[in-house]
Amino acid sequence: MSTSFILSFHCPDRSGIQSKISSLLYGNDAFLTDVQSYSDEDTQSFFSRIVFSVNSKTVISKISSQLQTLGIELDMVWTIDEQEKKVKTVIAVSKLGHCLNDLLFRAKYRNMPIEIVGVVSNHEDFREIVEFNNIPFHFLPIEKNLDSKRKQESLFQKVVDDAGAEMIVLARYMQILTEDLSNKWFGKCINIHHSFLPSFKGANPYEQAFSKGVKLIGATAHFVTPDLDEGPIIEQNIERISHYDNIDDLIRKGNDIESIVLARAVRWHAEKRVLINGNKTVVFT
Amino acid sequence: MSTSFILSFHCPDRSGIQSKISSLLYGNDAFLTDVQSYSDEDTQSFFSRIVFSVNSKTVISKISSQLQTLGIELDMVWTIDEQEKKVKTVIAVSKLGHCLNDLLFRAKYRNMPIEIVGVVSNHEDFREIVEFNNIPFHFLPIEKNLDSKRKQESLFQKVVDDAGAEMIVLARYMQILTEDLSNKWFGKCINIHHSFLPSFKGANPYEQAFSKGVKLIGATAHFVTPDLDEGPIIEQNIERISHYDNIDDLIRKGNDIESIVLARAVRWHAEKRVLINGNKTVVFT
Amino acid sequence: MSTSFILSFHCPDRSGIQSKISSLLYGNDAFLTDVQSYSDEDTQSFFSRIVFSVNSKTVISKISSQLQTLGIELDMVWTIDEQEKKVKTVIAVSKLGHCLNDLLFRAKYRNMPIEIVGVVSNHEDFREIVEFNNIPFHFLPIEKNLDSKRKQESLFQKVVDDAGAEMIVLARYMQILTEDLSNKWFGKCINIHHSFLPSFKGANPYEQAFSKGVKLIGATAHFVTPDLDEGPIIEQNIERISHYDNIDDLIRKGNDIESIVLARAVRWHAEKRVLINGNKTVVFT
Amino acid sequence: MSTSFILSFHCPDRSGIQSKISSLLYGNDAFLTDVQSYSDEDTQSFFSRIVFSVNSKTVISKISSQLQTLGIELDMVWTIDEQEKKVKTVIAVSKLGHCLNDLLFRAKYRNMPIEIVGVVSNHEDFREIVEFNNIPFHFLPIEKNLDSKRKQESLFQKVVDDAGAEMIVLARYMQILTEDLSNKWFGKCINIHHSFLPSFKGANPYEQAFSKGVKLIGATAHFVTPDLDEGPIIEQNIERISHYDNIDDLIRKGNDIESIVLARAVRWHAEKRVLINGNKTVVFT
Repeated sequence: MSTSFILSFHCPDRSGIQSKISSLLYGNDAFLTDVQSYSDEDTQSFFSRIVFSVNSKTVISKISSQLQTLGIELDMVWTIDEQEKKVKTVIAVSKLGHCLNDLLFRAKYRNMPIEIVGVVSNHEDFREIVEFNNIPFHFLPIEKNLDSKRKQESLFQKVVDDAGAEMIVLARYMQILTEDLSNKWFGKCINIHHSFLPSFKGANPYEQAFSKGVKLIGATAHFVTPDLDEGPIIEQNIERISHYDNIDDLIRKGNDIESIVLARAVRWHAEKRVLINGNKTVVFT
Repeated sequence: MSTSFILSFHCPDRSGIQSKISSLLYGNDAFLTDVQSYSDEDTQSFFSRIVFSVNSKTVISKISSQLQTLGIELDMVWTIDEQEKKVKTVIAVSKLGHCLNDLLFRAKYRNMPIEIVGVVSNHEDFREIVEFNNIPFHFLPIEKNLDSKRKQESLFQKVVDDAGAEMIVLARYMQILTEDLSNKWFGKCINIHHSFLPSFKGANPYEQAFSKGVKLIGATAHFVTPDLDEGPIIEQNIERISHYDNIDDLIRKGNDIESIVLARAVRWHAEKRVLINGNKTVVFT
Repeated sequence: MSTSFILSFHCPDRSGIQSKISSLLYGNDAFLTDVQSYSDEDTQSFFSRIVFSVNSKTVISKISSQLQTLGIELDMVWTIDEQEKKVKTVIAVSKLGHCLNDLLFRAKYRNMPIEIVGVVSNHEDFREIVEFNNIPFHFLPIEKNLDSKRKQESLFQKVVDDAGAEMIVLARYMQILTEDLSNKWFGKCINIHHSFLPSFKGANPYEQAFSKGVKLIGATAHFVTPDLDEGPIIEQNIERISHYDNIDDLIRKGNDIESIVLARAVRWHAEKRVLINGNKTVVFT
Repeated sequence: MSTSFILSFHCPDRSGIQSKISSLLYGNDAFLTDVQSYSDEDTQSFFSRIVFSVNSKTVISKISSQLQTLGIELDMVWTIDEQEKKVKTVIAVSKLGHCLNDLLFRAKYRNMPIEIVGVVSNHEDFREIVEFNNIPFHFLPIEKNLDSKRKQESLFQKVVDDAGAEMIVLARYMQILTEDLSNKWFGKCINIHHSFLPSFKGANPYEQAFSKGVKLIGATAHFVTPDLDEGPIIEQNIERISHYDNIDDLIRKGNDIESIVLARAVRWHAEKRVLINGNKTVVFT
């Protein structure tokens, strides 16, 4: 029986990359089912995601060791993962639970390729629903002083480390991560911001949108960086609003987009479709 | 045979407005076919658009004189227009003609309720297609000094006045109107900006969008005010882009949205659907 | 303190309806905040939804009794409801719970104006999550014979009656209601069909869509009638797919739209925005 | 100076295709900038589109001759085209010119990679605008008998042949092509149908949509086959409508989508992004 793997990589662009990689795979009897490669002119980088199946898992160690060698030659950053493997994920949330609820349901019933290994919150509102899903809930409150903030974040780090998490999802978590944590988890920590970035960064984006009289509101999923709401954008979407909509309506309509946009970003990241290209992303469909 | 009229008004909000207006119309045997009213809590204003038909045009003068009286009582700003009447429009354009071409075609073949009475441009690129449509083309070049700018704008004003225009459409006109002209035409001059405002104001929005790595690009039609790209928004829309799209692709995809968004705003304004509410708009569907 | 009410009505079209209604309301010191009226040429019918506030609830009985009289004169079908009142709702579900989960969360945390008074299912899969939400779960299995079908449906009717439900939502309930139940609940029973109707009626719409090679898939919320997937459409939406998507992807992407489309239809119906016009609907925004 | 080429192919699926192709290209110093490959499980076919640049055009004949050999080995259907080359196109139109006007403008000003070498019409309405664009206009009227139909179509064929056309675009051409012409041009003749297929095939789709009360209308661009409105779908899109929209509004809103959808399909086909897979298409973004 065959097993599917995903090879995802980027490297400085040059001739022959595709040829060398596909020869390597073909030489190991890999059967390619999806190949997407992209050469970025601006950064002179080559990005690729290849899905292939092999008849025995043992061949993967051979492929990996050959990739090791080729990777050095081509200066590649690469990962290889079994397609079925679920990504261990910690979710952080504050007072609004629509994204959390959506991710819990998707992980349980809807084939989302993540395993939620813990939920962190600075509030207790969602303990019940998290524990109902048999997931550890970590109540990590925070007081309005730097010391409490630091302490809480080191507990957050411990939760993540102890759970062996590979991804952090900030699902309407209303705390700004420290530079330290942001940097450490760069490329593995996804936030949902409730506006169409770069419009309406920071606090109260729906109030900002309302006062500007825009006709569409949006949501943006992006990798977290130390610069607030500035990390590489993974996915965005919008919803139409009108003069009939007050701020509560904006929030309600916006929350629907947030759930969808975050779920897509999380899925794509878990499926190794998202590669970082400077301050942007390459997202293979 | 019956004729349709559009009554459009706003006034400070209070009890009885709808009742008084509809009694006035009913008292003159008007038959209402579309009524949309909206009470804005923030500005305490009442907005309404009523489409009605009457059996003889003469009754309109009676309705108008009664509205005069009621308008004073309610402190109303109102207009009444025959539904079939086309709005005399001057279009301004620079080097990109997709919006112009779209509006020319709509005005000629597609029932857009405007009559294009002139096209102004600081370039000669579109003289041919404008004149092919039997519309006067006014080449008003402009040099990079304030004096030339002022002179050109007074010629622009003259064109508009001589043509008896009721609306100005800036269809990718790459000149900033002076405060004077902006103020004079407030609420009757529509611009298309090639971004999803308030993101990417000013010059080169597609370059800005590209460098930010957004996943959607947009266009915004708004009333012109002396503050650049800040006037009340009438309509916006977006298109999905991906890492595959370079700046030329963004421009191409964006141009398609610009044409549609501008055409909608122009149509809605010509149909008296757009009422200004502070720095926002009420748009009745 | 003022209370808001929604008056929703339709009647044969004629002159003076808006005037008479708004005079009646004004005569009782009602303050109108949202008025939408629509006159349908084809069916010669007038539809209206008026939101108004009054300072005391007692005035509503006076308004109602005057509407009684006017209703006879104008041959009106009308309802008047307190805006804050939640609509008692029974949800039916089979093996796919995304719509159910979404509605449960919205009713609990997200201001959806319904009170879920029971969940009916021919399977036991969602007993746990329903009971976790403190809502009665009714397991009503069904065998593949007409007798079992009839018996189960009479139990269904009993659940609905005992709970005092005012609306039934078929949230991926894979049973066809009998003509009897459909007729009895006409205009108060909403179904979500997982295709862009009228395409792909009946069974396995995603398989149908896949085999046709369409580039967009859709979902449709409609009132239930005895004719399968034929009732008046309330809301539809679509999602883009590509050749990369297999049937599982179509189902996954489709399920997201189903949840949103059904939630909108349920909210709009609960807010009295949906009026039936022959085999169509009028939906006031 | 380097020149860009597009290699587009499909073949029965098997191991090593990607490897063999990319080695062939690498062996000729081709620099790959965009690679998209897709393996279809249902039809066991492999589809690929590769954009590459070479430093001299002469190497292309070498690449082509090697592809000849490899093509036989792999049972490939392949084409190789210079990226800059414009596709010679004949457009057919009847009484509605919005798609024609849009394509004329795009071909002239907006970088659409087609050269319009002739316009055929059974009416004279658009002679003026076509000739204004310096394109031959062929008035080929048709009477309501089979003989006239046959005669007209043979004239149509002659126009296409004489102009050396590589693509036919039916831009709201209200005549059904004969089986003969459909078959001859299979995969090179694109039609725009004014509905969201498979809903509302055949005549008067907007009337059909209106009478069904759908909330979205659509347009579909597809390859023409002898079965009316049944050919492989290339692109679709939709627009939201409401009860306020009468049939004229549906037509107006629909026409906007038709132009966009057809323009996309034509561009993608001209850019060799569209590969036929049975009754479906693979469209590389």
